[in-house]
Amino acid sequence: MKIKVIAPIISDIFNKEMLEEFSAYASSETKVAVANLSYGPASVESEYDEALCIPNFLEKAKEAEAEGYDGVISNCFGDPGVKPAREILDIPVIGPCEASLLITSSLAKSFSVVTVLPNVVTMIENISKTTGVSEKLASVRYVNIPVLEVHEKDRLKAALYEEMVKAIEQDHAHALVLGCTGFMGVAAELQAKLKDNGYDVPVIDPAFAATKMVETLVSMGVKQSRLTYMTPPSKQRVMN
Amino acid sequence: MKIKVIAPIISDIFNKEMLEEFSAYASSETKVAVANLSYGPASVESEYDEALCIPNFLEKAKEAEAEGYDGVISNCFGDPGVKPAREILDIPVIGPCEASLLITSSLAKSFSVVTVLPNVVTMIENISKTTGVSEKLASVRYVNIPVLEVHEKDRLKAALYEEMVKAIEQDHAHALVLGCTGFMGVAAELQAKLKDNGYDVPVIDPAFAATKMVETLVSMGVKQSRLTYMTPPSKQRVMN
Amino acid sequence: MKIKVIAPIISDIFNKEMLEEFSAYASSETKVAVANLSYGPASVESEYDEALCIPNFLEKAKEAEAEGYDGVISNCFGDPGVKPAREILDIPVIGPCEASLLITSSLAKSFSVVTVLPNVVTMIENISKTTGVSEKLASVRYVNIPVLEVHEKDRLKAALYEEMVKAIEQDHAHALVLGCTGFMGVAAELQAKLKDNGYDVPVIDPAFAATKMVETLVSMGVKQSRLTYMTPPSKQRVMN
Amino acid sequence: MKIKVIAPIISDIFNKEMLEEFSAYASSETKVAVANLSYGPASVESEYDEALCIPNFLEKAKEAEAEGYDGVISNCFGDPGVKPAREILDIPVIGPCEASLLITSSLAKSFSVVTVLPNVVTMIENISKTTGVSEKLASVRYVNIPVLEVHEKDRLKAALYEEMVKAIEQDHAHALVLGCTGFMGVAAELQAKLKDNGYDVPVIDPAFAATKMVETLVSMGVKQSRLTYMTPPSKQRVMN
Amino acid sequence: MKIKVIAPIISDIFNKEMLEEFSAYASSETKVAVANLSYGPASVESEYDEALCIPNFLEKAKEAEAEGYDGVISNCFGDPGVKPAREILDIPVIGPCEASLLITSSLAKSFSVVTVLPNVVTMIENISKTTGVSEKLASVRYVNIPVLEVHEKDRLKAALYEEMVKAIEQDHAHALVLGCTGFMGVAAELQAKLKDNGYDVPVIDPAFAATKMVETLVSMGVKQSRLTYMTPPSKQRVMN
Amino acid sequence: MKIKVIAPIISDIFNKEMLEEFSAYASSETKVAVANLSYGPASVESEYDEALCIPNFLEKAKEAEAEGYDGVISNCFGDPGVKPAREILDIPVIGPCEASLLITSSLAKSFSVVTVLPNVVTMIENISKTTGVSEKLASVRYVNIPVLEVHEKDRLKAALYEEMVKAIEQDHAHALVLGCTGFMGVAAELQAKLKDNGYDVPVIDPAFAATKMVETLVSMGVKQSRLTYMTPPSKQRVMN
Repeated sequence: MKIKVIAPIISDIFNKEMLEEFSAYASSETKVAVANLSYGPASVESEYDEALCIPNFLEKAKEAEAEGYDGVISNCFGDPGVKPAREILDIPVIGPCEASLLITSSLAKSFSVVTVLPNVVTMIENISKTTGVSEKLASVRYVNIPVLEVHEKDRLKAALYEEMVKAIEQDHAHALVLGCTGFMGVAAELQAKLKDNGYDVPVIDPAFAATKMVETLVSMGVKQSRLTYMTPPSKQRVMN
Repeated sequence: MKIKVIAPIISDIFNKEMLEEFSAYASSETKVAVANLSYGPASVESEYDEALCIPNFLEKAKEAEAEGYDGVISNCFGDPGVKPAREILDIPVIGPCEASLLITSSLAKSFSVVTVLPNVVTMIENISKTTGVSEKLASVRYVNIPVLEVHEKDRLKAALYEEMVKAIEQDHAHALVLGCTGFMGVAAELQAKLKDNGYDVPVIDPAFAATKMVETLVSMGVKQSRLTYMTPPSKQRVMN
Repeated sequence: MKIKVIAPIISDIFNKEMLEEFSAYASSETKVAVANLSYGPASVESEYDEALCIPNFLEKAKEAEAEGYDGVISNCFGDPGVKPAREILDIPVIGPCEASLLITSSLAKSFSVVTVLPNVVTMIENISKTTGVSEKLASVRYVNIPVLEVHEKDRLKAALYEEMVKAIEQDHAHALVLGCTGFMGVAAELQAKLKDNGYDVPVIDPAFAATKMVETLVSMGVKQSRLTYMTPPSKQRVMN
Repeated sequence: MKIKVIAPIISDIFNKEMLEEFSAYASSETKVAVANLSYGPASVESEYDEALCIPNFLEKAKEAEAEGYDGVISNCFGDPGVKPAREILDIPVIGPCEASLLITSSLAKSFSVVTVLPNVVTMIENISKTTGVSEKLASVRYVNIPVLEVHEKDRLKAALYEEMVKAIEQDHAHALVLGCTGFMGVAAELQAKLKDNGYDVPVIDPAFAATKMVETLVSMGVKQSRLTYMTPPSKQRVMN
Repeated sequence: MKIKVIAPIISDIFNKEMLEEFSAYASSETKVAVANLSYGPASVESEYDEALCIPNFLEKAKEAEAEGYDGVISNCFGDPGVKPAREILDIPVIGPCEASLLITSSLAKSFSVVTVLPNVVTMIENISKTTGVSEKLASVRYVNIPVLEVHEKDRLKAALYEEMVKAIEQDHAHALVLGCTGFMGVAAELQAKLKDNGYDVPVIDPAFAATKMVETLVSMGVKQSRLTYMTPPSKQRVMN
Repeated sequence: MKIKVIAPIISDIFNKEMLEEFSAYASSETKVAVANLSYGPASVESEYDEALCIPNFLEKAKEAEAEGYDGVISNCFGDPGVKPAREILDIPVIGPCEASLLITSSLAKSFSVVTVLPNVVTMIENISKTTGVSEKLASVRYVNIPVLEVHEKDRLKAALYEEMVKAIEQDHAHALVLGCTGFMGVAAELQAKLKDNGYDVPVIDPAFAATKMVETLVSMGVKQSRLTYMTPPSKQRVMN
């Protein structure tokens, strides 16, 4: 199985870590490739950034299918372009937010997301509504660290831990979802630290969740429903 | 008050009728201008078309604010670009779908939307969920006529009437919303025909609803909340 | 267009300010008249008061229609008599609570109402449920000032501001609705003060919202659905 | 225990049958009295009728408490006046609709109400929303027989049976609630006929349900919460 | 009427108090008997305990029907075995949790449950979801006292009172439900103490609620719907 | 990774096919073992059967953990024993119903389950409620074939196909879930037949879904939250 992970940003600074992480998430039978955009925003932290990243993401996703990939991940927690890509591709397209929310739903009666900035809170809540699991979403918290600074891992982990404890104590979260695909390589450590402090709860890495969901769908031989994601009618479409 | 109506499509064939209709909808104190896109799709009938129309729509919306307009309408029933435009503009931005669903909610316990094609049904249902009125949405029906053929008014009206009666009789709709901004100039006639046949129910023209909603917000001196629609962080954004 | 605003109380102390305010809210093409009740309560602050004010409100509303008015507003935030008046009138009947909740729904993902007394909190929550927007209602807060004391504007504004900040900080409200039609002439100042303090959120005046909603419906040529608000069967009805 | 059943109508034609039926519903330890209104509508079949019956119902309810009754029933399926009466009385006040919906909720995953006329369908749905059990309400059907004709028992039973079967077969109702307190003395026979035809489902008589709910509350020593139903503030209230 | 109360535990230490309490709850026309299990857990404080207590509970419930009882109560707040017992019995089967939640729904817009341990919180929330009243459940709080220590009445009452005040002040509960059937004989005293401290809210004893609900159903001549609780198909079933 | 699949029935007739199927579902790195019960029902088709199968399932699940398995599947679509097993095991425990509903939620806006008998419809609906995806459940349909006859594959496939088409056409399902783990080896063929007939929708095999979900959780290093599934308190528990 071949999976293409597309970071919907023009920056390639995450690519190396992404390739390492996704290769580790995937089963030994899966071959992973990563890509980023030719045009669009440097990072995705608003509806505005999402709007600007989607056109090129759709081109890259279409290319991935033509290259023979079996599944595509839009590697941003806002799941940008997932819905339109499902309309134009015949292979599974997965977003890390939706995948995380669904997998976490099998582990706990409620969960919180901890993300980067307040700007994306409503966006994540809206995904929970259209995914259908908004009842279980206890809260969306944020560390107030921009995407392009999340590589400062110690600062990030300290801030995430603080918000996770608040999510459990104040919002009654019973599980935690990392709300940014830039939060790589910290889930296991945070889960262990929480357990050491008396909170035996799962911490979900969204990129990991997206990888397993794509592998699941490909191996099951299923893809998005054509009744929900219908093929767009033919027409003139002028690219800039 | 000055309102800019932006049709998020490259075709200008609707512009003349749009200008006439919106000028008639607006109060005598409101000045209306219309525009269409420089690049994007010929019509919007899928998530894919929406994704392609939004970048230039955002540029046009930004221009409208710079030109001194008091409010902007994204003139397509899928409300494309409304959320990101609200983030980057300081004047009200309104979509016809959201405006129609809210105004209709004050008239009836339930309503149906009758739109163009099955491709956009889920998109409209998702807007009802994030708007918060999905409980009142009895159904989304469609006439199976592409946007670029809706100028055949007799065929359109016959098809709309048929689906409207089904919405009332089978789906228990108590009010009706026209689900395409291309359905211009037919609401009053359909409402009268339904009444003549024993169905005394309101029929909402979405472009009319969007006009009155923008006028309402501008005259009340309010605009979108900056807590829901935060200003995007500064960063590099490369346009194609 | 002619609009009749009926305060469902026997006191006429608000009439002068009401006429000034509503005339300012309305467009220049709209003619506003105000009225109060011949019998009923001095103010409406409970389900009990609502029950006592409705019979005479319905008579006054019926009179307004006979006098040629195009729309009626029940000028109390509990929307007393709106539902039965819709059954017996053929012109739009609007309540300030429903109108406010719907208009605010287009501005923010969530909102709080700040009202007079704890007595009316459940009543307002119930309106949000039957209007269909209860998901967006973050909280109903109150200033603990009876209706007949709300003319003390400085005390009122200070108390409203305090609760508004709590609604934003503690209840995650992204917009605010003034929960009493006696809170006249304070919305713009409170919105400005909130913005000066870092909260760029809309503050909705319910009487203003009701005015624009009636004007919207009248200009669109629509009224309440006869399937939701059916004409009452003929029968003997003995007034006291 | 002494229970006062108040029919919120001016007609006394149901009083004799009401006294017989309620006496049979009540346990041998309970003493039942019935009353009707001095002014108001001949029957309750609209929001308009409800509005007109409530003021005198509240006076009669207040009298009942003064006379030493332990509980009051508003004997109409629209539960008119129940909420305001709970504010002004210190004894339990029960409406047959709410009582029926709650008791039926313990018997089946879903239920339908079969009522008199289409005019009251939305009213009943709204009660299910504020009671909190709207998820279980499969449908509200009607026999199209006005309240003042429901004494034609054979016609009534035939019409009810027909709608009950439709509720089960088409709306997936698993239990049935008679949606008018004028439908006296038919529940057991309809339940038996349904069972003979293969539908082993409960049929709830709303007057019976209201009686048992009042007896339950009185015997448990509980009444309405003063946090939900607060005592109305003192003020001038002018009766007609 | 004869009612059998089955405590789904092997311990008989509650039997004497149970018989006294239930006899006091029941009307003078009802004859109460109590029983406990032959095998199963010493108390029920987890899904695991529930699973272990149900098989013998079902045998005891079947016996009760054979002995001529008119109704059965599963005397534990987790309502263990109620659903399967409804499938195999032709008399009403009631659980204290469901009965309490439904009766309390007629008294207040919201309520909290105060139970024994955190272990059963999710279980109680799930019952509120399948019963259909989860919207009204403000919170489930706990006193952190195991079932087998609830006989220490002073400690219990102090802990319950503290959590009840928090439920009102912090969770906006307007009524309170005791969340363990071992909390016998304390509801009235707690209700009085709350009232003395300014909280005039009902406190519901779940065993009392279950008794009145069974009496209600038996006297109304109704039982669980066979469409929701179908008779299990015949087959081989090997008991341990 | 080692997975134990426990069929919660005394019959071993499915074991051979189960082992073949689950081995094919699992990745090459996963080792699968199957088991059935020592006591309990011959098949699970009611709440009653579920109650009887759970005690021995819990013993078998506990054994599996002791034997070093990394995850356990309760191989019945009612997910019997999953919740209590999660309390007493420290490895992931998965039910096919919950796993299917969550995975299908990533493929379509709505789905229907097609199961064996009407007896289990409410049970499946209740799982959708506690899992949190009930909004997306279009319907639960059944083929009216008992579990022990589902090996008649041609009859089964014909009946499933018929109900699947009804689910799409009448209930607006956009994806389909096989509602019995005995429906082995038919999903792919049914999906292909539906596609050939114009319905390009995914068909989910619940045993396949459960396998991929367990593999996902084990590889991610997560298990059920101890806040939702707390360890049961120590106490005496007498097995029969």
